[in-house]
Amino acid sequence: MEFAYTEASLALQQRLRTFMHERVLPQNAAWERIAATGRFPSEVVEPLKQAARAEGLWNLFLPGLRAGEPGTRLSNIEYAPLAEIMGRIPWASEVFNCNAPDTGNMELLHLFAAPAQASQWLEPLLDGAIRSCFAMTEPDVASSDATNIRTTIRRDGDDYVINGRKWFITGALHPLCRFSIVMGVSDDSPDAPRHARHSMVIVPLDAKGVRIVRNVAIMNHHTPEGHCEIEYRDVRVPVSSLLGEENAGFALAQARLGPGRVHHCMRTIGQCELALDLMCDRALQRQAFGKRLSDFANVQDWIGYSRVEIDQARLFVLRAAWVMDVQGNKAAQVDVSAIKLVAAQLQTRVLDRAIQVFGAMGLTPDTPLAFLWSWGRAFRFFDGPDEVHLRTLARHELSRVKKEPGAATRYQVPPVEHEALEIAAMSAARPPEGARTAVRSTEVFQ
Amino acid sequence: MEFAYTEASLALQQRLRTFMHERVLPQNAAWERIAATGRFPSEVVEPLKQAARAEGLWNLFLPGLRAGEPGTRLSNIEYAPLAEIMGRIPWASEVFNCNAPDTGNMELLHLFAAPAQASQWLEPLLDGAIRSCFAMTEPDVASSDATNIRTTIRRDGDDYVINGRKWFITGALHPLCRFSIVMGVSDDSPDAPRHARHSMVIVPLDAKGVRIVRNVAIMNHHTPEGHCEIEYRDVRVPVSSLLGEENAGFALAQARLGPGRVHHCMRTIGQCELALDLMCDRALQRQAFGKRLSDFANVQDWIGYSRVEIDQARLFVLRAAWVMDVQGNKAAQVDVSAIKLVAAQLQTRVLDRAIQVFGAMGLTPDTPLAFLWSWGRAFRFFDGPDEVHLRTLARHELSRVKKEPGAATRYQVPPVEHEALEIAAMSAARPPEGARTAVRSTEVFQ
Amino acid sequence: MEFAYTEASLALQQRLRTFMHERVLPQNAAWERIAATGRFPSEVVEPLKQAARAEGLWNLFLPGLRAGEPGTRLSNIEYAPLAEIMGRIPWASEVFNCNAPDTGNMELLHLFAAPAQASQWLEPLLDGAIRSCFAMTEPDVASSDATNIRTTIRRDGDDYVINGRKWFITGALHPLCRFSIVMGVSDDSPDAPRHARHSMVIVPLDAKGVRIVRNVAIMNHHTPEGHCEIEYRDVRVPVSSLLGEENAGFALAQARLGPGRVHHCMRTIGQCELALDLMCDRALQRQAFGKRLSDFANVQDWIGYSRVEIDQARLFVLRAAWVMDVQGNKAAQVDVSAIKLVAAQLQTRVLDRAIQVFGAMGLTPDTPLAFLWSWGRAFRFFDGPDEVHLRTLARHELSRVKKEPGAATRYQVPPVEHEALEIAAMSAARPPEGARTAVRSTEVFQ
Amino acid sequence: MEFAYTEASLALQQRLRTFMHERVLPQNAAWERIAATGRFPSEVVEPLKQAARAEGLWNLFLPGLRAGEPGTRLSNIEYAPLAEIMGRIPWASEVFNCNAPDTGNMELLHLFAAPAQASQWLEPLLDGAIRSCFAMTEPDVASSDATNIRTTIRRDGDDYVINGRKWFITGALHPLCRFSIVMGVSDDSPDAPRHARHSMVIVPLDAKGVRIVRNVAIMNHHTPEGHCEIEYRDVRVPVSSLLGEENAGFALAQARLGPGRVHHCMRTIGQCELALDLMCDRALQRQAFGKRLSDFANVQDWIGYSRVEIDQARLFVLRAAWVMDVQGNKAAQVDVSAIKLVAAQLQTRVLDRAIQVFGAMGLTPDTPLAFLWSWGRAFRFFDGPDEVHLRTLARHELSRVKKEPGAATRYQVPPVEHEALEIAAMSAARPPEGARTAVRSTEVFQ
Repeated sequence: MEFAYTEASLALQQRLRTFMHERVLPQNAAWERIAATGRFPSEVVEPLKQAARAEGLWNLFLPGLRAGEPGTRLSNIEYAPLAEIMGRIPWASEVFNCNAPDTGNMELLHLFAAPAQASQWLEPLLDGAIRSCFAMTEPDVASSDATNIRTTIRRDGDDYVINGRKWFITGALHPLCRFSIVMGVSDDSPDAPRHARHSMVIVPLDAKGVRIVRNVAIMNHHTPEGHCEIEYRDVRVPVSSLLGEENAGFALAQARLGPGRVHHCMRTIGQCELALDLMCDRALQRQAFGKRLSDFANVQDWIGYSRVEIDQARLFVLRAAWVMDVQGNKAAQVDVSAIKLVAAQLQTRVLDRAIQVFGAMGLTPDTPLAFLWSWGRAFRFFDGPDEVHLRTLARHELSRVKKEPGAATRYQVPPVEHEALEIAAMSAARPPEGARTAVRSTEVFQ
Repeated sequence: MEFAYTEASLALQQRLRTFMHERVLPQNAAWERIAATGRFPSEVVEPLKQAARAEGLWNLFLPGLRAGEPGTRLSNIEYAPLAEIMGRIPWASEVFNCNAPDTGNMELLHLFAAPAQASQWLEPLLDGAIRSCFAMTEPDVASSDATNIRTTIRRDGDDYVINGRKWFITGALHPLCRFSIVMGVSDDSPDAPRHARHSMVIVPLDAKGVRIVRNVAIMNHHTPEGHCEIEYRDVRVPVSSLLGEENAGFALAQARLGPGRVHHCMRTIGQCELALDLMCDRALQRQAFGKRLSDFANVQDWIGYSRVEIDQARLFVLRAAWVMDVQGNKAAQVDVSAIKLVAAQLQTRVLDRAIQVFGAMGLTPDTPLAFLWSWGRAFRFFDGPDEVHLRTLARHELSRVKKEPGAATRYQVPPVEHEALEIAAMSAARPPEGARTAVRSTEVFQ
Repeated sequence: MEFAYTEASLALQQRLRTFMHERVLPQNAAWERIAATGRFPSEVVEPLKQAARAEGLWNLFLPGLRAGEPGTRLSNIEYAPLAEIMGRIPWASEVFNCNAPDTGNMELLHLFAAPAQASQWLEPLLDGAIRSCFAMTEPDVASSDATNIRTTIRRDGDDYVINGRKWFITGALHPLCRFSIVMGVSDDSPDAPRHARHSMVIVPLDAKGVRIVRNVAIMNHHTPEGHCEIEYRDVRVPVSSLLGEENAGFALAQARLGPGRVHHCMRTIGQCELALDLMCDRALQRQAFGKRLSDFANVQDWIGYSRVEIDQARLFVLRAAWVMDVQGNKAAQVDVSAIKLVAAQLQTRVLDRAIQVFGAMGLTPDTPLAFLWSWGRAFRFFDGPDEVHLRTLARHELSRVKKEPGAATRYQVPPVEHEALEIAAMSAARPPEGARTAVRSTEVFQ
Repeated sequence: MEFAYTEASLALQQRLRTFMHERVLPQNAAWERIAATGRFPSEVVEPLKQAARAEGLWNLFLPGLRAGEPGTRLSNIEYAPLAEIMGRIPWASEVFNCNAPDTGNMELLHLFAAPAQASQWLEPLLDGAIRSCFAMTEPDVASSDATNIRTTIRRDGDDYVINGRKWFITGALHPLCRFSIVMGVSDDSPDAPRHARHSMVIVPLDAKGVRIVRNVAIMNHHTPEGHCEIEYRDVRVPVSSLLGEENAGFALAQARLGPGRVHHCMRTIGQCELALDLMCDRALQRQAFGKRLSDFANVQDWIGYSRVEIDQARLFVLRAAWVMDVQGNKAAQVDVSAIKLVAAQLQTRVLDRAIQVFGAMGLTPDTPLAFLWSWGRAFRFFDGPDEVHLRTLARHELSRVKKEPGAATRYQVPPVEHEALEIAAMSAARPPEGARTAVRSTEVFQ
């Protein structure tokens, strides 16, 4: 076991930290003010993208980078601490071309795109020239069970015809967003297997019949790039828009999941670290009842708990990243459920404490806390609600124990019963001799 | 609405409080030391019983007292605060002939005993001359679902023959304990309704075939009167031992439940109040890092939360007592589930805080806390585990809402969609006009 | 004790419930849609106000109504359940002229306004013709300790001159809002007592130097009437604008507090009831993994816990209202701290569960949950943060116990030590005889 | 980073696991039954010790083993998983000569014993021929602050004279226990520095004046080896009994702490894993309301949460072990506070869930759960109460943030105020234009 990052990884972390501190953070207020008008702050982001790429801080997330593709190839365990650093500012990942959902889409295209698809969509994505979105969740069915998806992808001659409604489509309002990857039912024959009925197709955002219905507020909050509701009404795309095999949508969705969840979790940990920093900084400054807040034992408790909870969660996420690197994404499936559960619940807990230390100011948009909290609450649904992950974890544990049953019996201490004791002995006004050993609190030597 | 006790009730509370303070509390250490040897402290309890009866503090729990029966007839709402006062010392209720499980048994006999049964068993119970126990829970089936009971009560000529094993039989080792009321299956025909298959019979403890197997420790703790495991092997009692109707055991069990749970809950609240008193007293005495514990904000939080949680729970229990008085036990069924759940969880929470304030001493038998905690943990199972009560509550709420469905729809705010907006408008490098209203944090006037 | 409402109170509740259901709820979506554009929905509210007043549902909150003043005079315990009913829709209280902060201002003016002040400001408030706001909280000092207030109210000839900055001023953007009551330092001499240095003055919103700086989002959420930041720069008002005595601002603030907190708490309970209704309704409709959500035991647990927590909190708030009615506002001071703490924490807990049952939809503005949650989070600061109330409660308990110290000693069970046992006895390879009673788990009779 | 154990470590784990399964577990009931009589089960333990030593599973805990000393030298990170395996059975560590408090004492003697002390006490300890105890905690002072210790160690000629009272002295009733290491005040001059006033001396248990007062029950539970209260009255030992330097007791205590806490924590994790195994096994067997408990979603939640909490805690403890190996015990001081806090709170949480799954049986001594729970509750005090560790953690975080202050400012988003807006504009019946951006829930495109 070795809990230290490699020298190379530490050096890269330091470069990224410096870039964040010197280049990104000073632009944060500007970004927020423009975004507050509803417009995406391209004039802030684009120059930073060029600078980051020039410094080699580009496409850090993609282990599969091939010769000629821009960016630095890193393993999951190398990328994870970088995601944590980027995560301290919600919009920063894009500066390094490492933002969701484009990262997941690039992974997917890397694995499954035909050559023409790759040159049309993947290359400009890797260059940061365009953005994309991923249309899976639907408003009318329980998102916890993806087999419920109802959007249809029907073959009609050389086209697919798409009908349905999706929501929580992150990034659809980004000024550079050009296409969505849409998941839908492509085989509705009654005997089709539950997990072999869906396909994914690439649908340009300007295709006829695509309509962005609205930018859905999340816990009262809008982002300028949007979490949108999109209607697909008789949208036609050529059959060449199919991604991977027909009816293999589920397998594709699975392939896309693992690393993205690690990224989400590490960014979340970055947010928690920021919240802890802010909490401490504020507690050191603020007075109440003649003491600094940092001298109150309850505030100290919040700080102490936050520290140990964050540190544990980070190790947990890093181990999942390591399992992916060593054994592949599939082997890490339960680990990835576990870290998603842990990180999301951690976030709202730590953020809530930070807000409490800030007092009423913590409710306002003057600190990052209110926005981060709303993200954290939403994260408890993104990639599946807590309950689905708990169920996955429980089923995994139960099947483990089922394989080697009987622990309860092996560790049981069966009581020795006194065979001869008959109740007749009880009828006297006092308990039998032996009952004296039924002691209450006998720490007294006699 | 009126939240004050009546004058009469307050006066009775004061008399009981005085008796507890002047007579019972000074004997507490003596009781504990004798009990610690495994022997029941009759020499402590019997004189106190006589004194309490002489003062008219006797059988306070039984609303149904009839002319000639000893004791003071009180309503549930009048008795409840008395149970709280008695509850501060675990063994005190017996001094007033108000201890479980005898209270429940006296209620049951009051309602269902034939005249001969009454004179043989009920009268000496009301006089405090004998004790009794109640044999329902079984070791091999889930206690949460009483239809699982397996002990058999088989008619054979003029006898019933009882076979089975029971545990958690409180009081069976009391030197005055003379009989158990046993619940078992009396009709095992396959088509018998699930709730009309059981009967209750009165079984003397000295009947042949009754064997007290052991006094089961509860969370490591023994009481001298015992929470026993009892085996019934071919035990014969005359058919006149049947309590109430044959196969009406469930109805009897239900009748027995309500008031007993209120008593349990109020005694529990008394324990919580004691724990809060002890916690404050200790916090005021003890120093750490140059301050009294009572000056640490986390200790203050524990005290503050304990106060509001106890006060809320007491009101909740009193309301259930009031429902029983006004509408009868049956109407209070869900309320009684609710208070049981609340009181048991409250106890371990408050006790845990008190233990933490006492430091290592809180682990020892030198304070009442360790014992009370173990009682509290057990209370989460007595009269049904938390989960059964939560289930009852949820089903009640769900059926309420089912009667008037549609709240989610009535309170929904359906979004107004912009009909004309086509995605074509999105292909420009910036969002459409309308998207400007997709604000991030626009508290700025423009 | 009597836990039933009077007939008259029940009848009034039914009338209000009917009005809410038939008149207010059907307008809810319209109100929300207009408010979503940033404009206050006067065209929705004004006709409803007239209808409510015509039905005698007007100024229900004000126990002090005098002859000729419009409205129905109710006690706190009669008004409380009405506040709960109104609380189900955030904007409904105004329909009945019962909305904060006008209710508190009307109470204050009722108690302290000079006749000219009453005719200029109180009468139109009671008529619902104008609105008002209350300017106390400041951005730069800890709101938990009101002696920190820095805004100055300086006497200059026949004027007061006000300088300072306030925030979280609810209602300042209401189109009918005409004045604020401003609290500030009027005596800054070093030897002035800490609680006799502040005054309250009435400041018209259109006075020169009053500037609404911004409408502060609360947990990402704006209301059309605003929670505003206001700057007062050299604002002059005539000395006749003083409310009550000079330097008596603290006494006035205290007088204002009690009933307002009960209203807040009961509205909050109404919101929790609504959330529980919605949670059940949704759970009954939605399917996952082949079952309705209402059949999952964890969802049932959330429902069960919500039920018992809400019911306990309601009783707790009602008791505080009753204390106010019977013993006056001052006597209820600690009770009022307690209910504020309990209600605010309850709200976010119940709302969080409801959101979880709704899935991603719970994050959107399509249900009332996201907004209500943000209100609940803010409520943990309004009228003092949780920690201040916990501190108040703890100090009250500690001083109670201090008066009768020694509980820890009285309830102690001092161990009997074995005097003669010398360690020499231990040197043998086995423990002394007496040590046999140091049992581990001896439930066995020997 | 590398999260895998080495091959050698895995092989050793497997050997230990096999020994535990084949040799120790089958004797568990026998051990418990003898212990239940109050006698230490030497006849069970001694043969197992010989077998373990023969297999090379001996003194695995001591990184400092020297040539000729029996046992296998392992690093902390190699030993930690072995402690977890041993931890599943409370008495198993002794079989491998790895039990507290002897492990800590052996470490201490290894570091500080003079040659004569080593041959008299350390060698037989390493051989498992004798046992020892460690006398630090005192009943009359707050254990959280060790400078409070009052026992005196006074030089008198060639002797030290010891007077004082200690409690929670684990192991003093073990039949092989021969000496205690006693910490006390050796320099009570007023100007002695607070952390240079105490010494440690070796005191044979059979020295005149040593009296084992009682075996203190811990949460109602006794162990046969005892957690004892010991009185030292005018006990004389030669000055050669001093361990290390005079007045260096604090430094010695610190040196003893780190590894011991890792051992405690890993054993605790072993207990949590056992509890999880038992919980799953029971849930798979038991039925209620027509389903297996393992099919209830709330039980699944408990299992899922237990899994992720245990896994995180284990990583956290292992990292602390690694820090010790790489940077030394002193560098790991805060880490060691952190793991102690986490492990103790984890234990009672997981154990409580397991008890709940077992129903009433979980309260009895028939499963290991009740005993383990009482150990877990005590662990929240052993080596310092939770609050002391939280304080340590908070102070560490605060001092970290203090070094680089200003995070709250750097991440602030100061609002842009509209300079020209005067309140005059507000006097019209509707808000100013700009206020339209004060939106409520505007996800609608217009």
